[in-house]
Amino acid sequence: MHNPDHSDHGRDVSAGEVLAPYLHARAADFLRGLRLHAESGSDTAGSEEATRTLRGAARRIGATLHTFRPLLDTAWADQLRTELAWLSGTLALEQACTSRLVRLVDALSRLSSGTGTGHGGAVPAARGSEAAGLTVGAARAGALLERQLTLARTRAHSASLQALGSARFHAVADAVALLASEVPLGPVGAAPAIEVLDGPAEVAERRLLEAVAALPLTRAAHPYNADALALAAGEGQDAPWHQTRLLLRLHRYACEALHTGGEPHSVLYEAARALDRHRDAAEAATAAATAARTPRIAPATAYALGVLHADQRHEVEAARFAFQRAWHRTTAPVP
Amino acid sequence: MHNPDHSDHGRDVSAGEVLAPYLHARAADFLRGLRLHAESGSDTAGSEEATRTLRGAARRIGATLHTFRPLLDTAWADQLRTELAWLSGTLALEQACTSRLVRLVDALSRLSSGTGTGHGGAVPAARGSEAAGLTVGAARAGALLERQLTLARTRAHSASLQALGSARFHAVADAVALLASEVPLGPVGAAPAIEVLDGPAEVAERRLLEAVAALPLTRAAHPYNADALALAAGEGQDAPWHQTRLLLRLHRYACEALHTGGEPHSVLYEAARALDRHRDAAEAATAAATAARTPRIAPATAYALGVLHADQRHEVEAARFAFQRAWHRTTAPVP
Repeated sequence: MHNPDHSDHGRDVSAGEVLAPYLHARAADFLRGLRLHAESGSDTAGSEEATRTLRGAARRIGATLHTFRPLLDTAWADQLRTELAWLSGTLALEQACTSRLVRLVDALSRLSSGTGTGHGGAVPAARGSEAAGLTVGAARAGALLERQLTLARTRAHSASLQALGSARFHAVADAVALLASEVPLGPVGAAPAIEVLDGPAEVAERRLLEAVAALPLTRAAHPYNADALALAAGEGQDAPWHQTRLLLRLHRYACEALHTGGEPHSVLYEAARALDRHRDAAEAATAAATAARTPRIAPATAYALGVLHADQRHEVEAARFAFQRAWHRTTAPVP
Repeated sequence: MHNPDHSDHGRDVSAGEVLAPYLHARAADFLRGLRLHAESGSDTAGSEEATRTLRGAARRIGATLHTFRPLLDTAWADQLRTELAWLSGTLALEQACTSRLVRLVDALSRLSSGTGTGHGGAVPAARGSEAAGLTVGAARAGALLERQLTLARTRAHSASLQALGSARFHAVADAVALLASEVPLGPVGAAPAIEVLDGPAEVAERRLLEAVAALPLTRAAHPYNADALALAAGEGQDAPWHQTRLLLRLHRYACEALHTGGEPHSVLYEAARALDRHRDAAEAATAAATAARTPRIAPATAYALGVLHADQRHEVEAARFAFQRAWHRTTAPVP
């Protein structure tokens, strides 16, 4: 990480003039996503692309409104941010169900296969009743997860469509359309960029650094520490990592808005990907645990779901390891 | 690893004269174990200590007869080695059941606890139905494993007592008592140590190096490779590691016999401990899988056993990682 380089934001440039082009561009992205969506019709790939575009733009606008709130018309910023959070949350669910199912089915197939993920040579086929039992259980567990997650995805899809057709969404779209040409600034927004832009960005960075400093990174650096496998502590132990993920995103988007990307950005991106993986694995583990509580399942199914749950918690631990690796490549000053 | 230092085995010392003191001492250990056993009566700790002594001596004598077979009366060596393998195999079972149960019960308690193994701070207690479901299942799984492994241990204990009272055992004890004062050498045993001792020791070392070279160590060096989690491949993928464990033991005992221990020995010891852990975790995983096939168990029990199975396979992977770390600290020449 490095201090924002505002060499091009001299004393004659206002903070609003620096932020506005970024917000204009993201608002334009949003409107493009909207157009893509209208044009996609029954084309699934096209509609997914449209949703991805909408979500990316909504996240970036929301983050910018959050981080640079002191420079903006705060009442407007708070209101739009709430609506964008509702929208991107609603739109995210369908994709989350899809990727969770893919993750779990892939893991089941890896777990019940006779070969390691990376082995070159031929490995003898599954043998004995141990393997056979797991194969049957894995097939049933896969079918159960598919049923449950497909149902959830269908519901999320309907909710998305409903949201995109709602009056609430049209109000958001109108607000974003205005944002594409004009940013409602507060009094501070007119001050010179060099005086008022760094403060909010530094707050975002400091909050991130503090959150990372509170993570058990020394422990995460020891492979196979089995920390993420204290299953009953699940959500409690994951929360600080999830929070760090959100703060890292705010920091990254603040860098984007101030054009202070560059080399360290790619390392931050890697760290962010590790935290995404952490979140995905944690949620997949929960989905496996939830499926295991389905009434009247066979013991073999429950067994395979237990294996899967532990496997995904193992992935959670691996993601923490990957995060601390990526983080130590940043030149982050310890606060 | 290093070449044996035979500075004290000059041309005037025969191979038999170098090997004999080692075999005499191990035979004396064996007889001491036997005496301890007779004296221990109903003292469990004493009888465990006696068994450990007997087993350690039997393993070392057997390994020496195997490695230095070309120097010995081969018919005698082969016969005694077979009998010692039978004995140490029989005596090992009870301890294996005990430590397997301890390992599995510890893992269950770690898995169903609300805290990581190494976290300092307070972590909120188990929450939600996810944790509650696992806690119930873990308790039942623990009870099931305890029942099954205690039964196996009781059987192993009876088998040990029966073996120690058998005519077959008395014949072994007589042979070892003779070995305490005299080693039946072959013609080569009378040759100068400097000419004939290194050969057999080098064969043992070469077989070890070849086995290690065939292991997927590059992969094992990548934490969280999930290789050991291809559950259906279980025994097949473990076999080369188990084989390496046995070859490492033969090599270590050959170093012991030739007084070529010292610094590298401690690293080899660490590598050996990692392979012991590998074996223990693999067998514990199998025990969890076996318990999961008990008819009419509750899904919650099967689920906890699945979690446990994956956890122990995770331990298998961790042990491979630890082995490759220890191994790279040896100065092993790649063959």
